[in-house]
Amino acid sequence: MDYYSTKITALIEELSRLPGIGAKSAGRLAFHLLNMPQADVERLTGAVLEAKRTVRYCRQCCTLTDSELCPICQSPSRDQAQIMVVENTRDLAAYEKTGKYNGVYHVLHGAISPALGIGPADIKLKELMQRLQGDVEEVIVATNSSLEGETTAMYLSKLIKPTGIKVTRIASGVPVGGDLEYIDEVTLLRALEGRTQL
Amino acid sequence: MDYYSTKITALIEELSRLPGIGAKSAGRLAFHLLNMPQADVERLTGAVLEAKRTVRYCRQCCTLTDSELCPICQSPSRDQAQIMVVENTRDLAAYEKTGKYNGVYHVLHGAISPALGIGPADIKLKELMQRLQGDVEEVIVATNSSLEGETTAMYLSKLIKPTGIKVTRIASGVPVGGDLEYIDEVTLLRALEGRTQL
Repeated sequence: MDYYSTKITALIEELSRLPGIGAKSAGRLAFHLLNMPQADVERLTGAVLEAKRTVRYCRQCCTLTDSELCPICQSPSRDQAQIMVVENTRDLAAYEKTGKYNGVYHVLHGAISPALGIGPADIKLKELMQRLQGDVEEVIVATNSSLEGETTAMYLSKLIKPTGIKVTRIASGVPVGGDLEYIDEVTLLRALEGRTQL
Repeated sequence: MDYYSTKITALIEELSRLPGIGAKSAGRLAFHLLNMPQADVERLTGAVLEAKRTVRYCRQCCTLTDSELCPICQSPSRDQAQIMVVENTRDLAAYEKTGKYNGVYHVLHGAISPALGIGPADIKLKELMQRLQGDVEEVIVATNSSLEGETTAMYLSKLIKPTGIKVTRIASGVPVGGDLEYIDEVTLLRALEGRTQL
């Protein structure tokens, strides 16, 4: 990286720390930034710092938001008795994009992973259990279909069942449009186990 | 994009303006930035603004650098009589990485393109011609092997030849390790025309 002057090299190094940005992309990005109008660059860095300054956890559901209570928790039209538990804010957005879910969320910010040393105390579980002391009818566990997501789902189920609140898990199976030929065996077996009557 | 709060949406929008960063990557980047330590985020935005503030054209070769004269033009070990003309600073870096070129450079910051309305006056040609009034033995034209790059090479050749300075063009042909079967016909013909005696 000695092919550029110090400040350009420093910029490329900082950019290449970002996820999904290799050395080549970082170089392309750096020169793009250097060629951008000053005002546009300042708007970009300003947006980063402003988001960083204002974004926090929602007091109720722990999603990342720039107000004390996120827009979903604030909305009077959402069903506060139905809580969907997700691993992060992007998973929440994925369900919001469907436009069909009318309950609220709880964002764990992670999943239990003994391998990575992430235990129940490291995710927003305590905050979820506190919410369950209110008027909640159902907890829909929508953690990922990975080892960590499944472990978290099992843990949540054991923790919540004694309270009498209904705990459900989103279905696991063949994605819509998926070709059976290309689906892994574990998913195929899950789809078989989870079959429903037509 | 209404699935996130205002400041997060603003951040994602700014990031998705960058080249090669689509909506999905912008979302991933935004949440990565929000989860980064404050100090790291400030170092990143600082590097952008600092590079933007200090980087300018080298007084001699027009490459992007943070000093008045770039490190290559400053170096006493480089042969100032041999000038390689490239389209941009990244192309300069590509040749520097070979570690075998000992001359200096001239960065045009573009190439002549009648289709895009980019004429000789829009690139750093005047600056090159001024340098040729000094003690220059050879100009190596290393513009890209595209229509614009070739047009620029032809133009340069016509402009420089009357001065008596030697003008050369980097070879065009089959890339090392390239499989003839997958090389386009124009390149194959170029390689044939440019054949050398063994």
